[in-house]
Amino acid sequence: VTTYLLSELANRLNAKMLGEDIAITQVASLEKAQPEHITFFNEKPRLRNLQDSAAGAVVISEEYANLTDKSRLVVKNPYLAFAKISALFNPVRFTSVGISAQAIVAPSAQIAGGVSIGAYVTVGERVHIGERVVIHPGCHIGDDVVIGDDCVFYPRVTIYHQCIVGKRVILQAGAVIGSDGFGNVRDQDKWLNIPQIGRVILEDDVQVGANTTIDRGTLDDTIIRQGARLDNQIQIAHNVEIGRNSALAACVGIAGSTKIGADCLIAGAAMISGHLTITDGVIILGGTLVAKSIKQSGTYGGSYPMQSHTEWRHNAAQLRHLKQLAERVKILEKQSGLAHSTTLSEI
Amino acid sequence: VTTYLLSELANRLNAKMLGEDIAITQVASLEKAQPEHITFFNEKPRLRNLQDSAAGAVVISEEYANLTDKSRLVVKNPYLAFAKISALFNPVRFTSVGISAQAIVAPSAQIAGGVSIGAYVTVGERVHIGERVVIHPGCHIGDDVVIGDDCVFYPRVTIYHQCIVGKRVILQAGAVIGSDGFGNVRDQDKWLNIPQIGRVILEDDVQVGANTTIDRGTLDDTIIRQGARLDNQIQIAHNVEIGRNSALAACVGIAGSTKIGADCLIAGAAMISGHLTITDGVIILGGTLVAKSIKQSGTYGGSYPMQSHTEWRHNAAQLRHLKQLAERVKILEKQSGLAHSTTLSEI
Amino acid sequence: VTTYLLSELANRLNAKMLGEDIAITQVASLEKAQPEHITFFNEKPRLRNLQDSAAGAVVISEEYANLTDKSRLVVKNPYLAFAKISALFNPVRFTSVGISAQAIVAPSAQIAGGVSIGAYVTVGERVHIGERVVIHPGCHIGDDVVIGDDCVFYPRVTIYHQCIVGKRVILQAGAVIGSDGFGNVRDQDKWLNIPQIGRVILEDDVQVGANTTIDRGTLDDTIIRQGARLDNQIQIAHNVEIGRNSALAACVGIAGSTKIGADCLIAGAAMISGHLTITDGVIILGGTLVAKSIKQSGTYGGSYPMQSHTEWRHNAAQLRHLKQLAERVKILEKQSGLAHSTTLSEI
Repeated sequence: VTTYLLSELANRLNAKMLGEDIAITQVASLEKAQPEHITFFNEKPRLRNLQDSAAGAVVISEEYANLTDKSRLVVKNPYLAFAKISALFNPVRFTSVGISAQAIVAPSAQIAGGVSIGAYVTVGERVHIGERVVIHPGCHIGDDVVIGDDCVFYPRVTIYHQCIVGKRVILQAGAVIGSDGFGNVRDQDKWLNIPQIGRVILEDDVQVGANTTIDRGTLDDTIIRQGARLDNQIQIAHNVEIGRNSALAACVGIAGSTKIGADCLIAGAAMISGHLTITDGVIILGGTLVAKSIKQSGTYGGSYPMQSHTEWRHNAAQLRHLKQLAERVKILEKQSGLAHSTTLSEI
Repeated sequence: VTTYLLSELANRLNAKMLGEDIAITQVASLEKAQPEHITFFNEKPRLRNLQDSAAGAVVISEEYANLTDKSRLVVKNPYLAFAKISALFNPVRFTSVGISAQAIVAPSAQIAGGVSIGAYVTVGERVHIGERVVIHPGCHIGDDVVIGDDCVFYPRVTIYHQCIVGKRVILQAGAVIGSDGFGNVRDQDKWLNIPQIGRVILEDDVQVGANTTIDRGTLDDTIIRQGARLDNQIQIAHNVEIGRNSALAACVGIAGSTKIGADCLIAGAAMISGHLTITDGVIILGGTLVAKSIKQSGTYGGSYPMQSHTEWRHNAAQLRHLKQLAERVKILEKQSGLAHSTTLSEI
Repeated sequence: VTTYLLSELANRLNAKMLGEDIAITQVASLEKAQPEHITFFNEKPRLRNLQDSAAGAVVISEEYANLTDKSRLVVKNPYLAFAKISALFNPVRFTSVGISAQAIVAPSAQIAGGVSIGAYVTVGERVHIGERVVIHPGCHIGDDVVIGDDCVFYPRVTIYHQCIVGKRVILQAGAVIGSDGFGNVRDQDKWLNIPQIGRVILEDDVQVGANTTIDRGTLDDTIIRQGARLDNQIQIAHNVEIGRNSALAACVGIAGSTKIGADCLIAGAAMISGHLTITDGVIILGGTLVAKSIKQSGTYGGSYPMQSHTEWRHNAAQLRHLKQLAERVKILEKQSGLAHSTTLSEI
């Protein structure tokens, strides 16, 4: 068991400690924390949970620091500080297995020091794997793939041939990198494939969630820029580019050739059409269908509001006749002598 | 070939048999059934299909029992009875292979009797596997996982370390249980991960579809309660709880920390935002974005109605100016001496 | 390096060559092309990119042929011609490994000539595999599966027992074919499974994307007809039928028993409810929820238009009261002596 004195944690985080100095052995939630645990508090409505908590210590902001007399670390950003403390108590533990006897590594592959390759992994010809990379069981690394230092690939990740993976990239189980994009051209009565000869490039510090798929480019590359975070079950089509530090929540789909800027936040199940450009710093709300480019940073949304089934049916039925309703209002306005002119841009 | 007399089936199901007693060898659809098959009928509009069917026998309700003179079993719930009959003819067949010589089981793992572990499976340290569990090829079971009796895991399932799986749990191919949740904290110009130290707990009789992903909890556990059914390609984020016997159709996404009650039905592609509480017995229609908690059981929906492209464009264009339209109506009302006051709650 | 003279390419494609005859070694995008590359041009707004391009040659339509004096191939459909040229320079290369010593093929399986089976593949009892089939590492082929000639399965594909795969079928990594459909019948306080005894049939020339899932039929079969193309992360439920040459973009979900006609185009993230019939030649726009059958070919859509968050909130708030708004307009019309009668069909 790792143990830190609360005062040691205060030192490491440049935090102010209030209350008694105690020994801490783990982080925990308000609800589950025990006297040897440290928790965090940053939502006033959860004050009751703080009062009821058995936690020995709490990470808290200046604003709320007087709401409790527990031992506490006072910081600017409690959740960030808590994340750092949690990382101290929960380092990524991994016992290197070296290269499993049940893995197949092509003779021409170059494997750096400290690498761990699990059972039933296949590593193709001319692959380069950087230092301390951990490849869990059942992964497949195609020919000519290049992998930077300190990556972690969880079980059953597939990386197709020629893709480039930066340093410290983390891929969760089942992720597929470099599959063929959906490139179909109609040739009379059948579809013809256009070869997908680009690659996927995952820059340093990219993270990709479970069962997320990222297609290789048709001619040029699909690129996920440094530090971008992709959650589970995301689909990235061919030729897409995701900017630095953008974060995409689960079930998002990005269609082909769309470029997303840096520092964007795309909430769950948002769908972005193809061939668009989304500028830096854009926030897209959950479930929004983005069908045109966004040139100004800001928050964008668009989803049908949930209602009871009955209310929804009535409103949706009217929605199907909204244009007529607007015209009826126009007629009423004319009759009333009210001049109204709106330019209704088509969407 | 398994054969039952129709009268035997009637006995087993406490059903009333009408018509001649015949030998039945399999279940089949109305369209494909042959004279040695039994089918079911429970939709009046499909009467023609019943009349045209070559089926030797049919499971039918009292209400429709006179619509045919085929041999028939009359029951309250034809589809339920048919499911039970189908299970008689189609037991889950599996020839135990014991533990494949091409599987890797850690020496500290404890494997009960009757277990079948397929080729290229990896079982981690200190794993417990209950009796008669069947693990198909290519699965990965992480360290310290506990698996109850009579589970079936189809090929290429991944269970991360420390997760808990109850009895009779069925996981379809490609399911990922216990991947790291999407826990990112902004630290100046980059994202920091908050360690995901909770587990996933799948209680008894849970079933999970192909390529569905269930993230482990950040601090506490992600919990799928007894008997819940999850279809394919579902995403369950960290700290979510799904209540007893709730059924989620394909492509549903549940964002972090949301709690779903018991006996809920969530239709395909519905998306539920994070940190919400959905009470017991809620039905969510397909494609609905649920962005606030639901405290009353009932049916909820919200999706844009499909139209021809032209109609949709016109209506959607008006929708972008709906607030102005409402204001124009208000002005007309004022002018007409009609007082109207609605409290339009923001969504 | 493969090299063709531009005049040879012109011959092969029946294209008119304009400008100097040069040697071409590869296809490339307008932006990345070098003097030894051929590119294509078919969008007037990208004229500037054409002018700036270092490409040695360009595939172009008659209409635009005079916009450049580069060496060029003039054709009716530049993208189609370019696809064919790309296929010349980029044939699917594969060095047959025969049957890997680290694969497990059941003794009763029948494997035709020229087949390549990668490491850690499992092939079940009585499987038939046609000529020149390539199965990449980590795939699982269940008992009694039949696979036609010239198929390619990328890593970690799973095909459940008894499924039928035609000729030239391509399955990208992580695809799951034949998983159990979501067949649950309520039996008092719990769910009962109805056995899924149908198969999946993938006809000739079908292609399926990464991590797409196709469930087997409950009684009859799930069928994907000849030449249909399915992108990544699609969910096809039990008993669905997809018509010839229909193309489904990523993240589409098709619920149980729905039949989709031939030559349909279904854009990304569209969701189609169960038990519907969609006729031939239907185009569904991205993100549309299709909740009723479509009997006429044409284009259909329905999705909430994206706006700034503030505008969206205001409009969505009004949308929740659209029925009342319509009634208020009706009252105004009555008062004004304007008779208005619309039959508002429920959706």
